[in-house]
Amino acid sequence: MSEWISVKQARLANSTERSGAAASVEVRGWVRTRRDSKGGFSFLEINDGSSLGNLQVVAPGELDNYASEVQKLTAGCSVVITGTLQESPAKGQATELHADAVRVLGWADPETYPLQKKRHSFEKLREWAHLRTRTNTLGAVMRVRDQISQSIHQFFHQHGFFYVHTPIVTASDCEGAGEMFRVTTLDLERLAKSGGPVDYSQDFFDKPTFLTVSGQLEAETYATSLGRVYTFGPTFRAENSNTSRHLAEFWMVEPEAAFFDLADNMKLAEDFLKRVFSDVLQKCGEDMEFFDQRIEKGKIAQVESVIEKPFQHMTYTRAIEVLESCGESFDFPIRWGSDLQAEHERYLTETHVGGPLILTDYPASIKPFYMRLSDDQKTVAAMDVLVPGVGEIIGGSQREERLEVLQTRMAAQSLDPQEYWWYIDLRRFGTVPHSGFGLGLERAVQYVTGMANIRDVVPFPRTPGSAEF
Amino acid sequence: MSEWISVKQARLANSTERSGAAASVEVRGWVRTRRDSKGGFSFLEINDGSSLGNLQVVAPGELDNYASEVQKLTAGCSVVITGTLQESPAKGQATELHADAVRVLGWADPETYPLQKKRHSFEKLREWAHLRTRTNTLGAVMRVRDQISQSIHQFFHQHGFFYVHTPIVTASDCEGAGEMFRVTTLDLERLAKSGGPVDYSQDFFDKPTFLTVSGQLEAETYATSLGRVYTFGPTFRAENSNTSRHLAEFWMVEPEAAFFDLADNMKLAEDFLKRVFSDVLQKCGEDMEFFDQRIEKGKIAQVESVIEKPFQHMTYTRAIEVLESCGESFDFPIRWGSDLQAEHERYLTETHVGGPLILTDYPASIKPFYMRLSDDQKTVAAMDVLVPGVGEIIGGSQREERLEVLQTRMAAQSLDPQEYWWYIDLRRFGTVPHSGFGLGLERAVQYVTGMANIRDVVPFPRTPGSAEF
Repeated sequence: MSEWISVKQARLANSTERSGAAASVEVRGWVRTRRDSKGGFSFLEINDGSSLGNLQVVAPGELDNYASEVQKLTAGCSVVITGTLQESPAKGQATELHADAVRVLGWADPETYPLQKKRHSFEKLREWAHLRTRTNTLGAVMRVRDQISQSIHQFFHQHGFFYVHTPIVTASDCEGAGEMFRVTTLDLERLAKSGGPVDYSQDFFDKPTFLTVSGQLEAETYATSLGRVYTFGPTFRAENSNTSRHLAEFWMVEPEAAFFDLADNMKLAEDFLKRVFSDVLQKCGEDMEFFDQRIEKGKIAQVESVIEKPFQHMTYTRAIEVLESCGESFDFPIRWGSDLQAEHERYLTETHVGGPLILTDYPASIKPFYMRLSDDQKTVAAMDVLVPGVGEIIGGSQREERLEVLQTRMAAQSLDPQEYWWYIDLRRFGTVPHSGFGLGLERAVQYVTGMANIRDVVPFPRTPGSAEF
Repeated sequence: MSEWISVKQARLANSTERSGAAASVEVRGWVRTRRDSKGGFSFLEINDGSSLGNLQVVAPGELDNYASEVQKLTAGCSVVITGTLQESPAKGQATELHADAVRVLGWADPETYPLQKKRHSFEKLREWAHLRTRTNTLGAVMRVRDQISQSIHQFFHQHGFFYVHTPIVTASDCEGAGEMFRVTTLDLERLAKSGGPVDYSQDFFDKPTFLTVSGQLEAETYATSLGRVYTFGPTFRAENSNTSRHLAEFWMVEPEAAFFDLADNMKLAEDFLKRVFSDVLQKCGEDMEFFDQRIEKGKIAQVESVIEKPFQHMTYTRAIEVLESCGESFDFPIRWGSDLQAEHERYLTETHVGGPLILTDYPASIKPFYMRLSDDQKTVAAMDVLVPGVGEIIGGSQREERLEVLQTRMAAQSLDPQEYWWYIDLRRFGTVPHSGFGLGLERAVQYVTGMANIRDVVPFPRTPGSAEF
């Protein structure tokens, strides 16, 4: 029996070694193209998802089913091919498979199969989200997405962080970070006819519940027991934002570490981003070449520069001075105390610094209650990591570990301490300095691949009016 | 400056090496106990979550703050200790830390701190889920949970599977696998007063949406493009089950592989379980010793036997024969065509086979529409993996890849083909044999640790009436 190997393995195989023994191999996959040669044989391009590139198969006219099947193969048909790997005379590929047998598993009627050779827009492909990863671009995106996810786990595991699954359904709303989705088992039709009020004792959790917007607060409880932890899971925003940068459902990684101050946190974020980006360049080289050539020219160099350059640090206050004196005209006004816009962030990282930049010490008034108040009483130990090409990619902070300061900050923001009793407890019992940050997975995939729309870097995007598949 | 090392590192350090150089180290963590010696010094047991065992610290009476602070330390206080690691004369520990300085970061008032030395029930600890991982048992559970999660990613990554994030919010309900939670942005109070009907055009997704019960169907779309994929994410059941084995929110891993038949699927499941369990024994040795001694005697041997024994295979039909003729009296009747109960499964794996057992070829009538119909037209290519001590731990199948058979099965179960158009498309365009299975993370953690209640192996359990934290 022939050994089943992937297209990736077949393409990387040392053909001379194999041709010596003439070992028979089996490849299983889908036809991308068929080209019949005048010499009475056909070339098939086969892909099985293991790599961007296809394996070229030479199917001789002597095959039993050459006329009846092989010559009818079209894009999308599934096949099992046995044969021997040989050195390829063609440019751009090391090996090709000389077929002894081509078995057809499934046909794909060219009249109805949507993915014909003609190019489709990414918008159109979203309607076929169940098929679109059969295209070069979406397949490459999802391999890169996988690699980033693997690197996230590997990086934190190797740095002594434990993976924690913070809850998705929650009765608390973190920091009021955004609009939330409701979760309920109440029958909405019956409820609508009830005349009200809502009887939550009939609901599954006996109270109003929501989809989480962040696992940070729960992660803090684990950081103050297990030391170093990270979450990596889905988070939700019910914001009516129909943009190329927003999803209602997205994945976020949030490390949280006890005894880390802001400097430790900045170093962690820098090491983390560099590791993830290096892995992608190293392990998804072919996919990244594709993005560099077809999606965004210069992408590889841009990612490399993030890896190579030490991240610069700058306070928010200094950044305001730079922006005020730089002579650029911005759409949004610059004023100490207001949030920076993407145009400001991009000017700072792209033009002023020319590389990754960590902004720190933001005004307390524009940041959530849990960020640590600095001695100046005006700023907090916040940090945003900015990178050329996109602006902010990571946001984080040292957390307020002092009980009284936290309580004062919560009161100032009219937060009910009763709802946060367990969060406050962490400052009551063995409190420690601790820090963390958040990275949106889709934003990172979008950055690395250069894909213009965030809906094209997630398997099945959830956006206003759209929950297909 | 002293190097900050974890308690785990300090305990594993080669003390003689270190004592040669008398290198100063710093340890940061929480006090578990303090014991004052008559010799005018104190022993502190310090834990930072990195390992089950504590680091013993010897705090000499000469410390500046010995009387004012060190002698007032109680369980839960947070400290930073610098000193030198030395060989310990005490039994059961290689090293101890001789303190040059003990800095107190946070106190924990023994009058109010819940985790005093006295033992608490696991029920009671659930009320303090934000603190309970500071106990030996819950800390060990969460380290094992982390290791299982890491091993899941490592195993599939090394076997060429891509990690896919299938959607959490969905408009389809998979197989009617269970009661579902509703997701909505409608204002329930206003809705209740509206008099109905529900206007979904006002809801976020313009239609009724739910929390997913399984990512399998979406994973199949990715398996038929990327080849081998797996999901690992939260899934939900709105079932009113108040048992020690049910959660409303739990994590599930679901591999799905193109060109895999049932035999490939069984081998994958066996290799997978063995790898995950081996990793836990190897990398969480201290935690597993604890479970073996304190939670369930013989647990390590039981897990080892799953690793060492080849999994036996048996058809459902044969299993019925065995159960009918074994002479045992069961609570539930045995009849071909009805589902096996836990008592049956446990008899088969524990008594009849005495090891892991994969049951295959279940009656089509008790399995979902997507499982592949066998030639006998009565059974499907299903598989359940049973292990001693718990019964079923994995359920899976080869999927129905034949368009007409799938459509007939769906019609027989009154499923609307319009709702599954994209799933059916996979059989229309380049269909391939493919298979997959599902493992509930919490069930696996429960099995490995021997914890009696599933609420104690998840950070913040979601159960009927309970969505705290």
